[in-house]
Amino acid sequence: MPLSANNPDRKSWLHVDKNSDFPIQNIPFGVFLTRDDIITIGTRIGDTAIDLGALHQLGYFAEIPLTDDIFLQDTLNDFIADGRKTWRAVRNRIAKIFDAENNELKNNKHHKEIVLFRLDEIEMQLPVHIGDYTDFYSSIEHATNVGTMFRDPDNALLPNWLHIPVGYHGRSSSIIPSGIPIHRPQGQTLPADATEPVFGPSKLVDFELEMAFITTDANDLGEPIPITEAEEYIFGLVLLNDWSSRDIQKWEYVPLGPFLAKNFATSISPWIVTLDALEPYKVESPKPIKPQLKYLQYKGKKSYDINLEVAIQPKGAKEAVVSKSNFKYMYWNMVQQLAHHTVNGCPVNSGDMMGSGTISGPTPDSYGSMLELTWKGEKPLKMKDGSERKFINDNDTVIMRGYCEKDGTRIGFGEVSNKLLPVYSKK
Amino acid sequence: MPLSANNPDRKSWLHVDKNSDFPIQNIPFGVFLTRDDIITIGTRIGDTAIDLGALHQLGYFAEIPLTDDIFLQDTLNDFIADGRKTWRAVRNRIAKIFDAENNELKNNKHHKEIVLFRLDEIEMQLPVHIGDYTDFYSSIEHATNVGTMFRDPDNALLPNWLHIPVGYHGRSSSIIPSGIPIHRPQGQTLPADATEPVFGPSKLVDFELEMAFITTDANDLGEPIPITEAEEYIFGLVLLNDWSSRDIQKWEYVPLGPFLAKNFATSISPWIVTLDALEPYKVESPKPIKPQLKYLQYKGKKSYDINLEVAIQPKGAKEAVVSKSNFKYMYWNMVQQLAHHTVNGCPVNSGDMMGSGTISGPTPDSYGSMLELTWKGEKPLKMKDGSERKFINDNDTVIMRGYCEKDGTRIGFGEVSNKLLPVYSKK
Repeated sequence: MPLSANNPDRKSWLHVDKNSDFPIQNIPFGVFLTRDDIITIGTRIGDTAIDLGALHQLGYFAEIPLTDDIFLQDTLNDFIADGRKTWRAVRNRIAKIFDAENNELKNNKHHKEIVLFRLDEIEMQLPVHIGDYTDFYSSIEHATNVGTMFRDPDNALLPNWLHIPVGYHGRSSSIIPSGIPIHRPQGQTLPADATEPVFGPSKLVDFELEMAFITTDANDLGEPIPITEAEEYIFGLVLLNDWSSRDIQKWEYVPLGPFLAKNFATSISPWIVTLDALEPYKVESPKPIKPQLKYLQYKGKKSYDINLEVAIQPKGAKEAVVSKSNFKYMYWNMVQQLAHHTVNGCPVNSGDMMGSGTISGPTPDSYGSMLELTWKGEKPLKMKDGSERKFINDNDTVIMRGYCEKDGTRIGFGEVSNKLLPVYSKK
Repeated sequence: MPLSANNPDRKSWLHVDKNSDFPIQNIPFGVFLTRDDIITIGTRIGDTAIDLGALHQLGYFAEIPLTDDIFLQDTLNDFIADGRKTWRAVRNRIAKIFDAENNELKNNKHHKEIVLFRLDEIEMQLPVHIGDYTDFYSSIEHATNVGTMFRDPDNALLPNWLHIPVGYHGRSSSIIPSGIPIHRPQGQTLPADATEPVFGPSKLVDFELEMAFITTDANDLGEPIPITEAEEYIFGLVLLNDWSSRDIQKWEYVPLGPFLAKNFATSISPWIVTLDALEPYKVESPKPIKPQLKYLQYKGKKSYDINLEVAIQPKGAKEAVVSKSNFKYMYWNMVQQLAHHTVNGCPVNSGDMMGSGTISGPTPDSYGSMLELTWKGEKPLKMKDGSERKFINDNDTVIMRGYCEKDGTRIGFGEVSNKLLPVYSKK
C-alpha cells in the first residue's frame, strides 16, 4: 500500500495555519471526549478535530474492511492491533476525504456538523491503554552527562552502554495525557552528609525530554522479533515527559533502578503521529563507536529528524524555552530497541509504549533535563519573570513540543504540557 | 462482615482429601476454561472446580448485590474492584452452599452437573489482567546472600536496604499461569575475563521463590495510601516464580536494574487465596534492625506463616525438593510495601500484582534461588536421577508449593509448575 497520504502537494478544504503541526500530511490518531460526552477515536487537521467513529458510521470508510465499532472505543488498541495495512488504508482514505478537490464531505453540511469539532469542544484522552511501558536510556550525551556528574568523568559511560540499548520497566498506571496536573511527590531522601534518610517533599523535581513509540501485537512468548522486521510493529510516536525526582532517585535506585523517583507521573502528548507520516524525515543514526552484536545491526535510515523543545512557564509569567534538542541524536534507534527488548522472547502487545530516554544533544542548550541544563543546580536558568530555576517549582508548567520540517511541509506532535502542583493534600 | 467462611469446624458435602490445600475454609478465586470451552470465574473445594458464573445464573447469589455478568468474565478484575465487602459476602455464601448441612445444591443433581467440574475437565488461566507488576526485594537473607556473593561480605546490605522496601517495575506481558512451558532465553553476556560481550543462550537460568499479592483499586494519582489502610486493598496471594537469567542480569543490570534477565517469563499459581482465608495464620514480622520512617510503621501482625517449598523435576525423573522456606521470613511486609509504593502518589489499580522478592530463610536449605542454594554453582544439588544441578537445565520442571497449617486446618496455594524448554526456534 503506497503512502499517498504523504503527498506534499495535497491541500485540505479545512483551514490549516501556515505553522500548524497538523497539515493534511500528518493525520495523527487520538482519542477524545466530544461536546456530547461521547468517547471516540479521532484525527486532526489544522485546528479541527475529526470524529472517526461518526465518519465510519456515516459510511465514509465503506471500502476498507473494518469492524463497525473500531473507532467507537476509548483506546486505539484494537485499531492498532489491526496492523499496518489497515492503518495505511485509513490514513490514505482520510487524506482523500479532506482533500480540497473532494466534495463528498466538504459539501455535506449535515455530516460536517456531526463529524467536525473545534478544539475547545473536545477533551483529549490517553490514546492507548498502555499494557507495558518500557523506558530506554539511549542518548549517549545524556548517559555521558549523568555518568560525569555522578560517577567518573573519565569513565562516564558504563561498560555495557555501547553494547546494549539499556532499558528498564516503567509504571503504566501513572501515565497521563497532556493537560492533567500532577503533584510534587513525597518520599525518602538522604540529606547531604547525613547517614539516615528523612521523609518529605522532593526538593529536586525534574523533567526528562523524551519521545516514545507505540507498538502493535508483535510476537508470542519466547519469540524474538528480528531487527529487519521491527519497524512493521511500530505504529507511531508521541512526546513524553518522564517526570523525575532527583533526590528520591539518588537514594533509592541502587541496585534495582529508579522506582518512586519516576512512577508518580509520566505525561505524553495525546496525538500519535504515525511512522508513515514521519517517513519523509528519516535520517541516519549516529555511527556506532564500538561494533554492535549482529541482532542489533540494521540497514538504512532508522532515525528521524524531529526538532524538540522544552519550555517552563511559571505561574502568571510567559514561558521560557530552556532546551532545544532533536530526536536524531539518539545513539540507539527504535528498531534496535525493539529487537533488543524481544531477543529473549519477551512479548510485545498492541498499545505497549517504549520511551527513548532523555534526549540530550551535544551542546549545553540541547540537554534534555534540568539536572543537565543547570548542571546539578550549579547554573540556574533565568525565567521570563526574572526568577531562577535549578529544578521545577510548584505551579510551574513544563511544555514540550516537537516537529519535523522539510520542503515546506511541517509535521508536528503538538505538545505535552503539565503543571506541577504542590504536595497532595486530602480534600 | 464476619469471616464465617473461616469456621474451622465446617465440613463440605464435596469430598476433600486430608492433605488437600483446598478445604471449604479456603475458597480461592480463579479463572478457568470449562469442558464446553467457556471462560468463567470459579473456586475450588478439594479436587472439584466450581463454576461461579453458572452458580450465579442459577440464582445462588441472589441475596448479594452483584452484576449479572460479574463471574462471566475472563479475569477477576471487576470482581476484585467491587471491594472487600463483596469478596467476603461471596466467600461466606460459597461456604454455606457447600456446607455439609446444606442441601440446596447438594440435592440438585441437574444444577450440580452444570456447576461442578473435575480438575481434568478444566484449564486454569491467568486469574487477573495484571495492569502493573512490581517486584520487591524484601527478604533480608536473600539481599544479604546476593550482597555477600557479588559485592562485599562485610557490607552485604546496601545503605538504603534497611530503610526502604526496595522494589522495581516488572513486565506484565510475560506473566503466565502454572503449566505453560517457557524457553531458555538468549541474550548478551560478558564471559569471564572478556571485555566484549557475546550473544547466545543464557547458561545460568534460575528460579526465584516468591509470593505476590493482588490489589484492588486503591487510590488516585497523587494520593498516598496510609499504612493503616493498606490491608483493605489487598485481595489475596499467589505463588510466584520470578524466572531469572543470572548471566544476562550480571551484564545488563547497571545502572537501571534487571530487564531482559527477568522479563522472558514470570509464572504464578492460578488460584488466588484471599487475605481473609489467610487471617488465622497471621504472625509477627521480624523486628526492625533500624528505626523505620513513620509512613512505614504499623501495628499488629502483618506477616503470614506460609510454608513454601521448591522442587526440580528433570525429564523422566522424580522431583527433588531443593528448598523449604516460609513467607514469614520477609523483613518488609505487604502493608509496608503498599504504603511505600504509593507514598509518592503512584496509583494502584484492581489486578495489579506485587511480588515479595526471593524468599530466603536463615538456613542454607531455605534459600529461594539456585544462585544461593548452590552458592553461585560452587555446591551443586543432587537430583533423584543422580544428575547434578548448578542452575536449571533444559526440560527441567520447577515446582513451587505453599500452605498454612494450624489446629488441623490446612489452607494451601496448590502449585506453580513450569517446564524450561530449550531455546525457541521458529516452527
